[in-house]
Amino acid sequence: MDLAQCSLNSVTVKGAGFTEVADLAEQWGFGGVGLWRDVLDGVDLAGASARLRGSGLRVTSVCRGGMFPQPTAELRREAMADNRMAVDQAHALGADCLVLVCGAAHGDLAGARLQVHDGIAELEPYARQAGVRLAVEPMHPMMASSRSVITSLQEANDLIEAIDSDLVGIALDSYHVWWDAALQQQIARAGERLFSVQLADWVTPIQGELSSRGMPGEGCIDMTGFVADCRNAGYAGLVEVEILSDRWWAEAAPRAVHAAANGLAAV
Amino acid sequence: MDLAQCSLNSVTVKGAGFTEVADLAEQWGFGGVGLWRDVLDGVDLAGASARLRGSGLRVTSVCRGGMFPQPTAELRREAMADNRMAVDQAHALGADCLVLVCGAAHGDLAGARLQVHDGIAELEPYARQAGVRLAVEPMHPMMASSRSVITSLQEANDLIEAIDSDLVGIALDSYHVWWDAALQQQIARAGERLFSVQLADWVTPIQGELSSRGMPGEGCIDMTGFVADCRNAGYAGLVEVEILSDRWWAEAAPRAVHAAANGLAAV
Repeated sequence: MDLAQCSLNSVTVKGAGFTEVADLAEQWGFGGVGLWRDVLDGVDLAGASARLRGSGLRVTSVCRGGMFPQPTAELRREAMADNRMAVDQAHALGADCLVLVCGAAHGDLAGARLQVHDGIAELEPYARQAGVRLAVEPMHPMMASSRSVITSLQEANDLIEAIDSDLVGIALDSYHVWWDAALQQQIARAGERLFSVQLADWVTPIQGELSSRGMPGEGCIDMTGFVADCRNAGYAGLVEVEILSDRWWAEAAPRAVHAAANGLAAV
Repeated sequence: MDLAQCSLNSVTVKGAGFTEVADLAEQWGFGGVGLWRDVLDGVDLAGASARLRGSGLRVTSVCRGGMFPQPTAELRREAMADNRMAVDQAHALGADCLVLVCGAAHGDLAGARLQVHDGIAELEPYARQAGVRLAVEPMHPMMASSRSVITSLQEANDLIEAIDSDLVGIALDSYHVWWDAALQQQIARAGERLFSVQLADWVTPIQGELSSRGMPGEGCIDMTGFVADCRNAGYAGLVEVEILSDRWWAEAAPRAVHAAANGLAAV
């Protein structure tokens, strides 16, 4: 892929601040950036947005909202307040979407899934007012107790169809869904509700379920086929590279971006 | 659960030989043992079978056959020869089933799934002659590149229904499937095709995708609900405790069995 069709997610160079992420994306010719909210702490969002626009960089995603299942009503209120702040940040940056990491469960999966549905339905009117699209990210089943009870694209499709809003769609990361026998069919089903497409590769052994990922090409996922399926379904946006990797985080940011660029070039 | 309704899988006390596994199961009052083939190396199977029968211990499973996807015809023949030997061992022990760990894929998942189907269909007549039941084990999606491309109970049910033999069913381990939104419905669908039910608990962080498991009660899985769903579907056999855990493997075997027994008692 041409890097102009790709976006650099800030977590790929965890530790780098907003300006460094923007500079690296510009130097390498990326078409955009995906921004985790940690790099927005203390940053003037109007200035940041102008900086990115000036370089022709889109904001393909802000990460994250979500974490809807909470044990008490007060914690649910706190989570919802944080979600509204995330919507505000995505609005200020003109992001393509706010990624929803829906939240985990210990034990009562069905109850947690209900709280996810209800939480998104509650957030939707606020997002609509701001013109921000919400992207449910189905996450790998190994994260069901730590990150999200939405563990497959089929489940995410069921969820967004139940909510039935043109502003609620899918963020699809190869890492989370590559194993699924129903993947192609479910990508076609998602169609234009694909708001974000992200790449990370599957490498083993898993050393911590969050940050054992590989650059595109380091693992076993058919990235070219995955991107083609998303394009065929109607996804016309940039493709993000989002690599949570203790191994790459130990390298200097420019080396990680170099590796990401090489990996994307081969897709 | 009463331990007489449970079976001790040998891998829970990895490193223990056949006799030690049988002795531990008998001392603690288990109703049976599940045997990985490493503990059968060099063991006289007729004598072993008599030893177990004499103690009233069933053999609930032999593990494993499978590994059907192979890159060459010769390797497929070798895998099939090994599978026939596994069938012979399960027959000699009068085991309730031979567990199939179906095999992994790097890249071509659809091709690997086809080889799994064809491999089981090829093995079935041999298993029929021996009167051995084959139990497809759906495995956690995090093992798709290392152990099995059959990553959900729905997929396993689709597979065994396509093969359509009363001797081809399911080995269901809580660890591999607990996250699945369709689990209850798919357990009911499997019904009397549930040939084996195993328990292991989900604990994080994952340190290696094979052997990070917990004793029942150490993690977040609703074991009581899982067993109840299997019983309601018609499973009448013993429930195995099969814990692959670097943490527990570092303990002496009697301590691991003690912990397993305590965990099962609370289910």
